[in-house]
Amino acid sequence: MNSFGLRFRFTTFGESHGKAIGCIVDGVPAGLEIDEEFIQSELNRRRPGQSSLTTARKEADKVEILSGVFEGKSTGTPIAMVIFNTDQKSRDYGNIKDIFRPGHADFTYWNKYGIRDYRGGGRSSARETAARVAAGAVAKLILKEIGVDIKGAIVQVGKVESKELDFDFAKNSIINSSDKSAESNQIEAIESAKKSHDSIGGAVLVKAFGVPVGLGEPLYHKLDSQLANAFMGINAAKAVEIGDGIDSCERFGSENNDAIGKDGFASNHSGGILGGISNGDEVVAKVWFKPTPSIFQEQTSLNTSGEEIKYALKGRHDPCVAIRAVVVCEAMMAIVLADMALLNMSSKIDYLKKVYTK
Amino acid sequence: MNSFGLRFRFTTFGESHGKAIGCIVDGVPAGLEIDEEFIQSELNRRRPGQSSLTTARKEADKVEILSGVFEGKSTGTPIAMVIFNTDQKSRDYGNIKDIFRPGHADFTYWNKYGIRDYRGGGRSSARETAARVAAGAVAKLILKEIGVDIKGAIVQVGKVESKELDFDFAKNSIINSSDKSAESNQIEAIESAKKSHDSIGGAVLVKAFGVPVGLGEPLYHKLDSQLANAFMGINAAKAVEIGDGIDSCERFGSENNDAIGKDGFASNHSGGILGGISNGDEVVAKVWFKPTPSIFQEQTSLNTSGEEIKYALKGRHDPCVAIRAVVVCEAMMAIVLADMALLNMSSKIDYLKKVYTK
Amino acid sequence: MNSFGLRFRFTTFGESHGKAIGCIVDGVPAGLEIDEEFIQSELNRRRPGQSSLTTARKEADKVEILSGVFEGKSTGTPIAMVIFNTDQKSRDYGNIKDIFRPGHADFTYWNKYGIRDYRGGGRSSARETAARVAAGAVAKLILKEIGVDIKGAIVQVGKVESKELDFDFAKNSIINSSDKSAESNQIEAIESAKKSHDSIGGAVLVKAFGVPVGLGEPLYHKLDSQLANAFMGINAAKAVEIGDGIDSCERFGSENNDAIGKDGFASNHSGGILGGISNGDEVVAKVWFKPTPSIFQEQTSLNTSGEEIKYALKGRHDPCVAIRAVVVCEAMMAIVLADMALLNMSSKIDYLKKVYTK
Amino acid sequence: MNSFGLRFRFTTFGESHGKAIGCIVDGVPAGLEIDEEFIQSELNRRRPGQSSLTTARKEADKVEILSGVFEGKSTGTPIAMVIFNTDQKSRDYGNIKDIFRPGHADFTYWNKYGIRDYRGGGRSSARETAARVAAGAVAKLILKEIGVDIKGAIVQVGKVESKELDFDFAKNSIINSSDKSAESNQIEAIESAKKSHDSIGGAVLVKAFGVPVGLGEPLYHKLDSQLANAFMGINAAKAVEIGDGIDSCERFGSENNDAIGKDGFASNHSGGILGGISNGDEVVAKVWFKPTPSIFQEQTSLNTSGEEIKYALKGRHDPCVAIRAVVVCEAMMAIVLADMALLNMSSKIDYLKKVYTK
Repeated sequence: MNSFGLRFRFTTFGESHGKAIGCIVDGVPAGLEIDEEFIQSELNRRRPGQSSLTTARKEADKVEILSGVFEGKSTGTPIAMVIFNTDQKSRDYGNIKDIFRPGHADFTYWNKYGIRDYRGGGRSSARETAARVAAGAVAKLILKEIGVDIKGAIVQVGKVESKELDFDFAKNSIINSSDKSAESNQIEAIESAKKSHDSIGGAVLVKAFGVPVGLGEPLYHKLDSQLANAFMGINAAKAVEIGDGIDSCERFGSENNDAIGKDGFASNHSGGILGGISNGDEVVAKVWFKPTPSIFQEQTSLNTSGEEIKYALKGRHDPCVAIRAVVVCEAMMAIVLADMALLNMSSKIDYLKKVYTK
Repeated sequence: MNSFGLRFRFTTFGESHGKAIGCIVDGVPAGLEIDEEFIQSELNRRRPGQSSLTTARKEADKVEILSGVFEGKSTGTPIAMVIFNTDQKSRDYGNIKDIFRPGHADFTYWNKYGIRDYRGGGRSSARETAARVAAGAVAKLILKEIGVDIKGAIVQVGKVESKELDFDFAKNSIINSSDKSAESNQIEAIESAKKSHDSIGGAVLVKAFGVPVGLGEPLYHKLDSQLANAFMGINAAKAVEIGDGIDSCERFGSENNDAIGKDGFASNHSGGILGGISNGDEVVAKVWFKPTPSIFQEQTSLNTSGEEIKYALKGRHDPCVAIRAVVVCEAMMAIVLADMALLNMSSKIDYLKKVYTK
Repeated sequence: MNSFGLRFRFTTFGESHGKAIGCIVDGVPAGLEIDEEFIQSELNRRRPGQSSLTTARKEADKVEILSGVFEGKSTGTPIAMVIFNTDQKSRDYGNIKDIFRPGHADFTYWNKYGIRDYRGGGRSSARETAARVAAGAVAKLILKEIGVDIKGAIVQVGKVESKELDFDFAKNSIINSSDKSAESNQIEAIESAKKSHDSIGGAVLVKAFGVPVGLGEPLYHKLDSQLANAFMGINAAKAVEIGDGIDSCERFGSENNDAIGKDGFASNHSGGILGGISNGDEVVAKVWFKPTPSIFQEQTSLNTSGEEIKYALKGRHDPCVAIRAVVVCEAMMAIVLADMALLNMSSKIDYLKKVYTK
Repeated sequence: MNSFGLRFRFTTFGESHGKAIGCIVDGVPAGLEIDEEFIQSELNRRRPGQSSLTTARKEADKVEILSGVFEGKSTGTPIAMVIFNTDQKSRDYGNIKDIFRPGHADFTYWNKYGIRDYRGGGRSSARETAARVAAGAVAKLILKEIGVDIKGAIVQVGKVESKELDFDFAKNSIINSSDKSAESNQIEAIESAKKSHDSIGGAVLVKAFGVPVGLGEPLYHKLDSQLANAFMGINAAKAVEIGDGIDSCERFGSENNDAIGKDGFASNHSGGILGGISNGDEVVAKVWFKPTPSIFQEQTSLNTSGEEIKYALKGRHDPCVAIRAVVVCEAMMAIVLADMALLNMSSKIDYLKKVYTK
């Protein structure tokens, strides 16, 4: 089950330390200009090794398009993209070959499949998210054509919450922080975790601007349910809310309903979604990430022979996985919205006539 | 898009005030005893009109099985279930014919489809969840065969949180509250909202016991992503977390990792899921619901002609939609787990040999 | 796996002698006038008991719409249709309870599922095709909006082939024969088979007129592959060809290629499909049906205890199942084309802009 | 729509003269030995340039596995395979840049997408079938584990039909002919077509041996309907039959029914499928292919400006596309059967217990 989406549908492959990772993006409408530089620039945003606050692993993450683009434009055929792995220090992982790292997928993959590529987490490695970012970049190109823009930022690191939501600031923040005044404390929280050979959690907020009303396919392919699906599937994600989500639960209906006026909604508690369909307002979602399970302190675990062991992990890992997840969240939101935009085209018989009547 | 699930797959139909609602459940393995009384008893748990704390609307919600069952057992063919609508007071809804109720799907359905069955919310009514409960009951029968049991309860109403998680208590609580000591305050919160013609939010916790290790199909049909999909698609759901979800974000890795020992995990911060696959521990999820948008205070809105209006809703509505959502959450979790159990059967070549070698 | 189609998607349920059969049609664009009389008239064309040349079983086949239509129009929500079974002479089938009828699905259902509803063939009965015809009628209503019309006729009974292809004649022919001069011999072939307690095969030709160029989603949802899928799935279908199919195999490329001119194609050997996509010409397909396996002569078989037996079937059966399959073939072609028309709407970025730009 | 299959699911990408073609195979059970040499040997069977009777184009068709295999075994994660294009003589195709070749997909791709990669047919080239053969080889490895074997052969070239069905002979025949006595005439028919700058049609027969009873998922994922889907989707395929298909249509039921005895079926008119489910006998299908549309005689057509033109194609093409389609037909049959074997695992509640009960 390595595909996501219905009309805009991508399928990924690849393990952390295999030959390559990549994806096939299917369902891209023909005639779209495929800006390769933009795709690469999105990948660069996710790329590790850019600061002391992310993993020291160095990957060029150079994407190569193998198909589906002709003379700079999409042809309606599948777009395959591949990223060859170049920094495969497999020896780093020899020591975890027979160990189930706590908080990791080692134990579950082993039990489900009876075999696992232990090198760097194999398929369960967050490295796979590079393929999502590549597919998400294509989705963003589609969305641009209909005026939709997506922005994400870090709004929490450990207990340090952002108070401002400044996407412009986030763009240049080394940790994608949404808040100038919180950034230094957030950085400190990461550094402190790193220093004690530990890791720390965080949260990401994503917003889509310019979303047309009508996106979402109720009842079982709602915009919010698919966003939840998309976000919760990202490595280390543990919670998702739409709009005021959790706060809504504490409110009265009279507080939480967004009054509708001629110029739109008076508030946006709903996060731009009603009945699983976009209402024309900004679509807002928040995603919480657990701390990276990869820590360098001694931990108790089992080995594959079923014996209890003590061990301390070595290697290179992000102290706060949420940081690099910002662009992944944006990508997944773009993919969901592009898919919904394509699906919505058959919602009315009038659209059908518009397309088929000359 | 009115189907959910891949191998255990159900498709629902029906509007609040149409002739009937119902579902087709596809993929039920043959030879399963279909306990109709159990299915009906699950529907009875969801049925409105059972106390002053839920809507006064009275529906027998009598389910009828039309196919797929022969001499009490499933035959492997689709099981169609129908519930005829009996209490269709459509006149209650005449006054909202041309109005977009704030917080409702009226506005988005109208804009997406250009037409809507306004009677009782039509397709967007929570009445459709009866079909989910029926399908969920069948899923529970499958799960029972492999020792899986699911329990849900209310853990929050407005600002009143439960401190205990007592499923036995919840079973007999009029509001499905998980906590004897919090129940009365929770009830009071609902009654107070009702008295002021308002509504109030709430939260539900669901747990699955006895889940085998190995359920979940990474990377895009993970157990947690599909639970998020399933829960967020329920009417009025606005947030979902798995395990310690939001709290995890504030922790260090050393606090959040669940140590693995010979007798299982030392803790269950993960909510029983690692890498999108069940780890054999209890699967835990929490769902937050917004207050019912249907309130009887005056609100500002638009009519279908685009004019601003003031209006006060009439009719019969749940003051706290989360209460009756408990059994719906259980149903959706059962559906996801049954689907995952079927999907997982082809995970190993050994299973294939087990089935095909005599 | 009881669903067909991707965007226009229907799911059927029901056994021959259960309470009801029916379907849910999902993906119908909103705003379509749902002509119930037309749907019923299509079902009437398939209905048994209309002449001595089809089964004597009498079913009113009265269809009831349960959802998805409001004030005569589709609302974009699933359209559920149900046909209650009224002529369930289950006693007719008591004698086949423990017998595997040769040529029937009895043996395979029993072995696959370990249980079967033996009454009238249960789920494997051709009675289920009524649900397809109902769904097909809705598909025809969609196609009508974009100028597509579908016609079918019998072109062979046993060894008696039609020479003419006169759809107007077929419309009034008691056996849907396409050829006035062949009809009486075709009828005689059926009657002769019937007289000797036997059955006979036949073939159906279907054509779609007015199909826009561009329908079909290569490479794995091609128009021709999905037509083959749709036709071969009809009860008793054993072969399918597109255009000149089998004859093409005997030709040279210079004979078989259709020259392209300003006014269209000079010939239509291709059957209106090139590379899996409609070329704007008529779409032509032929389907061969085996003789009904239900015959009243003595046959050799096994019972469910594994003993060899001799038995002669009783009951009411079509001597030539192809006759009533004409409208089923039309329905399946309509369903495929409607699905393709919806899918094709996202083929070009220009269409996207057309729909989303005001 | 570039994916095929539900549980064994492959997705292909690539154009004839792009950088590469390939596929992602998803759903391969873990623990299967992946014999790379076998996969390559299957590709070699399809590879062009092996005799004067197929295209002179030379491609090494060297397959490279990028993921999903660890220490020689499948891990349950997606297996990506890529074949880099090495013999891209794009200049050969400059002259068809603005021309719609009769019988080709040029016209339909252009009209559907508004853009096409004209080099060598782009996505519509039969070159893509290499990806199917690679995926099919993996499917064959799965099937081998449960004792299923698949064989194919040419049974007709132009008007020259095989009388024998000798798969051993076919294995060594330069044209995969099933009949020693017909082979030379079949070869002559191809050479004669080639000499006159023409092409010729042909037919392929495929058989699966050792298929367990019970494969096929009625009603809309039947074994026969999916075989029809799979075969009709192959380039140039125009007709498909199962078992005695077309002949059945001319028979009486008493002739066509396969009597069931203790030792199996007395005959196999059905082609091993009843009610869409395998009956344990050999599964038999025949596929008819049109002559390659690529011929070197002068033809009438249109250019992209809508002007009528005369032109003669240059380049390298198979005079009889059916020859190299034999291994493609085998691959598609293997893919369908592997998928069905996985799907069937959830048909009975007993299988579920077998897998989940220790």
